[in-house]
Amino acid sequence: MSLNPQYENIGKEFVTQYYAMFDDPLQRVAVANLYNADSSFMSFEGVQIQGAVKIAEKLQGLTFQKINRILTAVDSQPMFDGGVLISVLGRLQTDDDQPHAYTQTFVLKPIGTSFFVQHDVFRLALHDMA
Amino acid sequence: MSLNPQYENIGKEFVTQYYAMFDDPLQRVAVANLYNADSSFMSFEGVQIQGAVKIAEKLQGLTFQKINRILTAVDSQPMFDGGVLISVLGRLQTDDDQPHAYTQTFVLKPIGTSFFVQHDVFRLALHDMA
Repeated sequence: MSLNPQYENIGKEFVTQYYAMFDDPLQRVAVANLYNADSSFMSFEGVQIQGAVKIAEKLQGLTFQKINRILTAVDSQPMFDGGVLISVLGRLQTDDDQPHAYTQTFVLKPIGTSFFVQHDVFRLALHDMA
Repeated sequence: MSLNPQYENIGKEFVTQYYAMFDDPLQRVAVANLYNADSSFMSFEGVQIQGAVKIAEKLQGLTFQKINRILTAVDSQPMFDGGVLISVLGRLQTDDDQPHAYTQTFVLKPIGTSFFVQHDVFRLALHDMA
């Protein structure tokens, strides 16, 4: 495996597709299909879980219906196993909550001609108005 | 190689040491020694560079003297090559500028009993008061 020269497009397209599913309450749980059954890691506000089943449970527990999301930056880098590192900085508002800055990091691993999410770290900047 | 069970401590210690050097204008350029001569990637505010020499030049070009940094969260995950993924969310104030939220992602790769920085993505949330 080597560096994938398409890393920039892969990152942008992945983020667009991922959030289109995640932000739709009817499709949100299906996001778990993008993770590996056993090996994928998700850290959500400091809580770390592993594997698609636990990730689906986590997604099912997110009860907000309306998401207003603005992407400030999507930075991608090619990885030496053919994967892509993606760092997202954005602003997020769920239902009638205040908008908050957030960061989300994805590591995509190649599997055949596609990718799965090997790592996912999400954090909301709850105190960013301080 | 397999998952390093010490990933949490490795992440926290790395971030502490990295910022202690970076935030000291006399030590800042030496941070480049933590990157690989050829293969390391750095994205700094959307500009991507590769290799320790260019990274040292970038660090040398950062002229701020005083940094006030608050770490909101340091999230680490173990990687399957023995490396560590680190996602930092924080607030940053340089010299007399306004404080801003920022995110920085590091991928540490094992080399012998130590690590080097394979990937580094930095972004300031310049409009986070909007």
